[in-house]
Amino acid sequence: MPRREVAWIVDRPEGADAVIQGERGSFSEAASFATLGRGARILPAATFDSALDALALGRARHAVLPVENTLTGSIGPVVDLLKERGVRIIAEHKLHVRHCLMALPGVDFGALTKVASHPQALAQCARFLAQHRLLAEAVHDTAGAARTLASTKVRDRGVIAPARAAKVWGLRILKRDVQDDPENWTRFFVLVRESPTVTTSVASKRRTGVDSWKTTILFGTKHAPGALSLVLNEFAAAGLNLLKIESRPTRGRPWEYWFWLDVETGPPEGDPRLERVLGAVRPRSTFVKVLGTYRPG
Amino acid sequence: MPRREVAWIVDRPEGADAVIQGERGSFSEAASFATLGRGARILPAATFDSALDALALGRARHAVLPVENTLTGSIGPVVDLLKERGVRIIAEHKLHVRHCLMALPGVDFGALTKVASHPQALAQCARFLAQHRLLAEAVHDTAGAARTLASTKVRDRGVIAPARAAKVWGLRILKRDVQDDPENWTRFFVLVRESPTVTTSVASKRRTGVDSWKTTILFGTKHAPGALSLVLNEFAAAGLNLLKIESRPTRGRPWEYWFWLDVETGPPEGDPRLERVLGAVRPRSTFVKVLGTYRPG
Repeated sequence: MPRREVAWIVDRPEGADAVIQGERGSFSEAASFATLGRGARILPAATFDSALDALALGRARHAVLPVENTLTGSIGPVVDLLKERGVRIIAEHKLHVRHCLMALPGVDFGALTKVASHPQALAQCARFLAQHRLLAEAVHDTAGAARTLASTKVRDRGVIAPARAAKVWGLRILKRDVQDDPENWTRFFVLVRESPTVTTSVASKRRTGVDSWKTTILFGTKHAPGALSLVLNEFAAAGLNLLKIESRPTRGRPWEYWFWLDVETGPPEGDPRLERVLGAVRPRSTFVKVLGTYRPG
Repeated sequence: MPRREVAWIVDRPEGADAVIQGERGSFSEAASFATLGRGARILPAATFDSALDALALGRARHAVLPVENTLTGSIGPVVDLLKERGVRIIAEHKLHVRHCLMALPGVDFGALTKVASHPQALAQCARFLAQHRLLAEAVHDTAGAARTLASTKVRDRGVIAPARAAKVWGLRILKRDVQDDPENWTRFFVLVRESPTVTTSVASKRRTGVDSWKTTILFGTKHAPGALSLVLNEFAAAGLNLLKIESRPTRGRPWEYWFWLDVETGPPEGDPRLERVLGAVRPRSTFVKVLGTYRPG
């Protein structure tokens, strides 16, 4: 339950490479290293909101935020912030989520009664916890749970977090891969501040021979019969393949939706088909926001 | 953090009218009364899973479950269960969510330090809690928090729950409408067991002059370029208006999605346009499940 008033942005030297939600050792940190390099300087933030505040204030050059998970679906609060904040996507990264059970050094598995982690992580390990009769305790972040345990030193307490969190916070890994489903992946966006002269310099590690790109577009349809179908028809008629469509509720207008589309397009320099479609879609929409064109991760 | 092993189904006389997730006095109970009548006998269940177990076992004739909220979007775990379980939608209900802060009788607002509720309810009252420096404590259900407080009698503890929960559990309402956003609505489905001779006898309270119906359809697209666009084109070509589209991740197949569509159709006896579209969609889909045709709530 992140709350604005408890939001912290830890004091670090100016100009971090990436601000993340959560502590050092988190999955977001791993995604930052994978996209920005092992030496990336990380600025932790308590909430998604405060992470994007840090980006807006120039305290970090990138924000690396999770947008969807293959078990639980889209991460609504982040998707909503993509609409509200002035950000641009320059890369995506798909991270294999592998949860570890860890505890204080010297504590054995049998001594544990309670396990703390983010509610999503606990849900993803629900079978494991039930089997071993371990009580789940929800906290704001996986690596943050590791940090807390390292300082409170409660001996019957375990933490579910990424392996790196054990190293960062001095805990001992008792079991690896405690997630119920091995096909657990999280998709991250690497975001920069929206600006006319935005850099798109993040190198893609998996450049394939094919010149394939993805564009993320947000739009709201007017509340009229057939509005959504009309917009989708434009994409289909232009031969632009939909990779993902997701509806989000519009605040203050119950049962009206806006949409997140991922579309297969040409490179960021401009795809004439996309330009044509957007020209036709704009008059039929309450808003259209092109968040960025990037390499499939 | 609902866990299978702690799932309970309280012993009640056989044949409840509705099984709900959560305790007596919850929003789900209010939705049950609104759709099935004030006298409906309610069976509380700890989890969505165990609620649908009760339905499958015939311990309740209906399950009344929340599927989306106008602030937070679709309720992923319920949407996933609609795909996995043999259920049919016979009605929908849109409930105005109004949160109340309540405490033990005799306790004043100023004495409170901590407030317990479901994480969603806490998130929906985050501004109110921050303003009054109240710590949020996440528990499995709003009305359940009221029940717990009534038995533990902790005097500095508040609960955020529907007004009815105060009456049911003997608490006192300190403030009404503590939600940050007044336009907070939750959509519920009234579900029955899937069967060839299903009853569709729930009366619609808001029968309008227009003969308007909604059909909910779930389908998975084959992992091929353009698969989603092809399916949506069929609906558009038949003149069937899309009311909602939502993607959900496919378990075990990372980055493959299935979809939830709400479509404006004719009555449940059969809409020839819909039959035609489904005929064209089936060969292009990994599965198609028509969940039911019902009156817009």
